[in-house]
Amino acid sequence: MRLSMITAIALYSLVITGCKEQTNAQTDKQATAAKVQSIFPKGEKGSSEYFTGNAYTNGLVPADSTYATLVGNVYFEPGARSNWHRHPAGQILIITDGVGYYQIKGQARQTMRKGDVIQCPPNTVHWHGASSDTGLQQLYIIPNTEKGIVEWMEPVTDEEYSN
Amino acid sequence: MRLSMITAIALYSLVITGCKEQTNAQTDKQATAAKVQSIFPKGEKGSSEYFTGNAYTNGLVPADSTYATLVGNVYFEPGARSNWHRHPAGQILIITDGVGYYQIKGQARQTMRKGDVIQCPPNTVHWHGASSDTGLQQLYIIPNTEKGIVEWMEPVTDEEYSN
Repeated sequence: MRLSMITAIALYSLVITGCKEQTNAQTDKQATAAKVQSIFPKGEKGSSEYFTGNAYTNGLVPADSTYATLVGNVYFEPGARSNWHRHPAGQILIITDGVGYYQIKGQARQTMRKGDVIQCPPNTVHWHGASSDTGLQQLYIIPNTEKGIVEWMEPVTDEEYSN
Repeated sequence: MRLSMITAIALYSLVITGCKEQTNAQTDKQATAAKVQSIFPKGEKGSSEYFTGNAYTNGLVPADSTYATLVGNVYFEPGARSNWHRHPAGQILIITDGVGYYQIKGQARQTMRKGDVIQCPPNTVHWHGASSDTGLQQLYIIPNTEKGIVEWMEPVTDEEYSN
């Protein structure tokens, strides 16, 4: 028991030495995250199939035949963003805190801040996510879900993100 | 010019002496309001035809044929509430800060707090508003607006509100 504790401490020391830069980066992200206020629990980490970086999604209202409306919250850590995608019935974004970006394919990137409301028209290819130094808290509303919810596409490259 | 300033100061002194209690009550409400964080501008005071007390509404997304979804924010000062009403297509409430109440006709009053999401079914008579000592910041979503938006009814009496 004592031996395995010593082994664990030694391993831990090795790991924290090796990961020092990563730990500092994480501390910076946590400090930034603390500045961005949350209304809802953080939720589950979004799949790397659909997101670059750390995005956390929290479903609030499931799509059903009564409301035909999907509502949820996404917290994007700094630098995190969705893949390119489109919604058959469009999407409404409500920014509750932080700073982020939103871009429709072929148009200039727009900055989104607390209190902004974005309407993304049906079948319009776009992405959204946090700015590189501040996270983003974002409510999304997908109306008329009988038309479909989302069609995912390729990731947003670092070059596309920075433009 | 100087005379009118002196008159103004004298009048102001009379007014603040006469309104001391009211001013204290207002200061209390402002202090409470400061504790309830806002995401959006306060908006316009809701009509006394539909609200008891001070409620401020801020439209965020108008109903149109693309999204068929009405979105807005209401700030209820402590004690303020809507009349009884119903929505032909139902309503989703998202509480972003503060404390409030929600009641479906014939059921017990429920308390709503930051992070709560309420689904009010179609054609269900209900009211919502702030608690008596803390204001409420509330986003509302009315889906499928082609079915209609709201049917207003009678005010919520003090007895109904306190029950």
